Amino acid sequence: MHYVYLDFNSTSPLAPSVHEAMEPFWAEHFMLPGQNHAGCQGVAEALERAREGVAELVGCEAFEIVFTSGGTEANNLAVLGVTNRSASGHVIVSALEHESVCNAVGSLERRGWRVDVARAGSDGVVEATEIERLLRDDTRLVCLQAANPILGTIQPVREVADICHARQIPIHCDAVQLFGKLPVDVGLLRADTVSVSGHKFYGPKGAGALFVRRGFSLSPVMYGEIREMGLRPGSENVTGWIGLGAASRLAGRCAAEAAERMSELRARFVQRLCEQISPQPTILCEAAERLPNTATIELPGDAARIARVARHLVLATPRTAKPADEMTRCLQAIGLSPQRIGRCFRISLGWTTSQEQIDRAADLLAEAWDTCRA
Amino acid sequence: MHYVYLDFNSTSPLAPSVHEAMEPFWAEHFMLPGQNHAGCQGVAEALERAREGVAELVGCEAFEIVFTSGGTEANNLAVLGVTNRSASGHVIVSALEHESVCNAVGSLERRGWRVDVARAGSDGVVEATEIERLLRDDTRLVCLQAANPILGTIQPVREVADICHARQIPIHCDAVQLFGKLPVDVGLLRADTVSVSGHKFYGPKGAGALFVRRGFSLSPVMYGEIREMGLRPGSENVTGWIGLGAASRLAGRCAAEAAERMSELRARFVQRLCEQISPQPTILCEAAERLPNTATIELPGDAARIARVARHLVLATPRTAKPADEMTRCLQAIGLSPQRIGRCFRISLGWTTSQEQIDRAADLLAEAWDTCRA
Repeated sequence: MHYVYLDFNSTSPLAPSVHEAMEPFWAEHFMLPGQNHAGCQGVAEALERAREGVAELVGCEAFEIVFTSGGTEANNLAVLGVTNRSASGHVIVSALEHESVCNAVGSLERRGWRVDVARAGSDGVVEATEIERLLRDDTRLVCLQAANPILGTIQPVREVADICHARQIPIHCDAVQLFGKLPVDVGLLRADTVSVSGHKFYGPKGAGALFVRRGFSLSPVMYGEIREMGLRPGSENVTGWIGLGAASRLAGRCAAEAAERMSELRARFVQRLCEQISPQPTILCEAAERLPNTATIELPGDAARIARVARHLVLATPRTAKPADEMTRCLQAIGLSPQRIGRCFRISLGWTTSQEQIDRAADLLAEAWDTCRA
Repeated sequence: MHYVYLDFNSTSPLAPSVHEAMEPFWAEHFMLPGQNHAGCQGVAEALERAREGVAELVGCEAFEIVFTSGGTEANNLAVLGVTNRSASGHVIVSALEHESVCNAVGSLERRGWRVDVARAGSDGVVEATEIERLLRDDTRLVCLQAANPILGTIQPVREVADICHARQIPIHCDAVQLFGKLPVDVGLLRADTVSVSGHKFYGPKGAGALFVRRGFSLSPVMYGEIREMGLRPGSENVTGWIGLGAASRLAGRCAAEAAERMSELRARFVQRLCEQISPQPTILCEAAERLPNTATIELPGDAARIARVARHLVLATPRTAKPADEMTRCLQAIGLSPQRIGRCFRISLGWTTSQEQIDRAADLLAEAWDTCRA
């Protein structure tokens, strides 16, 4: 690789040990767990060990984990699976949610449901009181993500969950950005459903999971054979889900140490960048509790142009697209003007990010800024 | 492997060349096609080449291929994606469909849709006239699979498609059992949507596709970012779909030759088995046009017991389960009594099946029959 990859919130490479864990299940132990032969017993056991691996990371029982094709399917299953139980009602969704949550809720709105969007503060946090204010007698679901991929801000899921549960309202938490970056425990998050996405923490693409709290009632969104506690049909993605299990175990072992290191490197990047660029960049939402690996920074000039000049860096900038992309939406949600949004970029570090890469990234951006200013 | 695997209609091992094609996209070219960097251009191109590979196999344009997480998702997208356009109506589904089609249609029935099941003959074929008889003015969809996984029988999809299209009624064809076994061309099948599943023809599990005929209108069943022509959101399963593309190209090159060989080996198995077992087994649906790799055979005794004794063979037998499994359902659909169903087993050969394996399989079954009779 000739580039410095600072876009781990978008996707991450498969970890070598995860690759290795998947390897025997491609062509050697290729059977499905339900086939009619003792030879598939080993596959079934490996898949259950993978489920236990995800459960350990999430902090739940194995039977509370439903495997899916990724975070988007997990979010759809949670949102549509809960609301399918009612003909209509009211849903609250935070202004910072991912498209898979927003648009699943949008599909309900087209079917006559009422939807309220909980506003985020300029600090990138949706206050629990803001959600509490919107609760109604017919509220059937509240959606609040664990951590925002753009701003890195942690949301008060536990507080909101307690408020919701006091009124018997279910809460779904899209936590795909949390795993591998901070220790997680659904016992603390207290949400009823929690989404997991493998490729966000060095697992395979096309593999995710939904935590469904014991006893919590959910309908499937796809139909077929009875698999995954009746919530997800289709032949098991054995290799993908075994990879997800291995990535989960790896994240359980590495996340705390990696968090510390990523936090240090993030601070180093911010400092080095601010020393070299004048007028000084603004670091957004710095006061909030946050992911250790994410920084969103407002430059004194057009970020997309600077990023194009610093072409050896992989980072995220907002796009001019309709509908607005996630980054634009999130920056709008915290009150930034279109002009300010155009000056923002996001970096997101990974376990493998080195100090040398961080220094080079800051230097390349500073050089690009000089070039663009000239 | 110490066993003889004759259950390729359930799943197949990943082909070595497919494994190799996927390899660079795990950890080296791991970016998503839409990321903000020139480095992801290669990934985007590889994914489009994979789409072209699937399109070549299916006999369509690349833009008519929507990637999914597998055959079940493809069937759900086709069935629910068409019927979502109407508040209610009538659907015809053949008696031989897979659970993912039956149960998606079942979900419509619970929402007030009328459903008619087109009967299969004792030859394992759903006649076009049977479907024509059931058509109504408010029929919104007809579902007819290309080939039955249990009986191996080919269904008259083209004839039914022509009847449907003359009345402006869409037809969905679940063709997951056809690819890799016979040359396919949607220009001949003429269905509006056609399902593909990678792991049925030496591709990865968790990867499938839906052919959607140019100009055919479909709604998504999951929500999120605009991906896959707006029909399938979520981060792309880059590795899985590249594997599906590679498997498709392989199937395009190998299927015709493999079909001939599998057909010969199937005949050899049937002959060898019938020579050794007395009273002679009955070969089901032998008169119908069929998949070259599949044989369903009624033994003179309990098939599950014989299969347990012949424990080095992997083959399919009906299970006593509620709801009935696919094999039981299909055998019921062609009019077999519970007693006869209990005597049936299915073998399904693959590209790698050898003559030695076929001989051994027939011998092992004959020995098991002797043991059980004694």
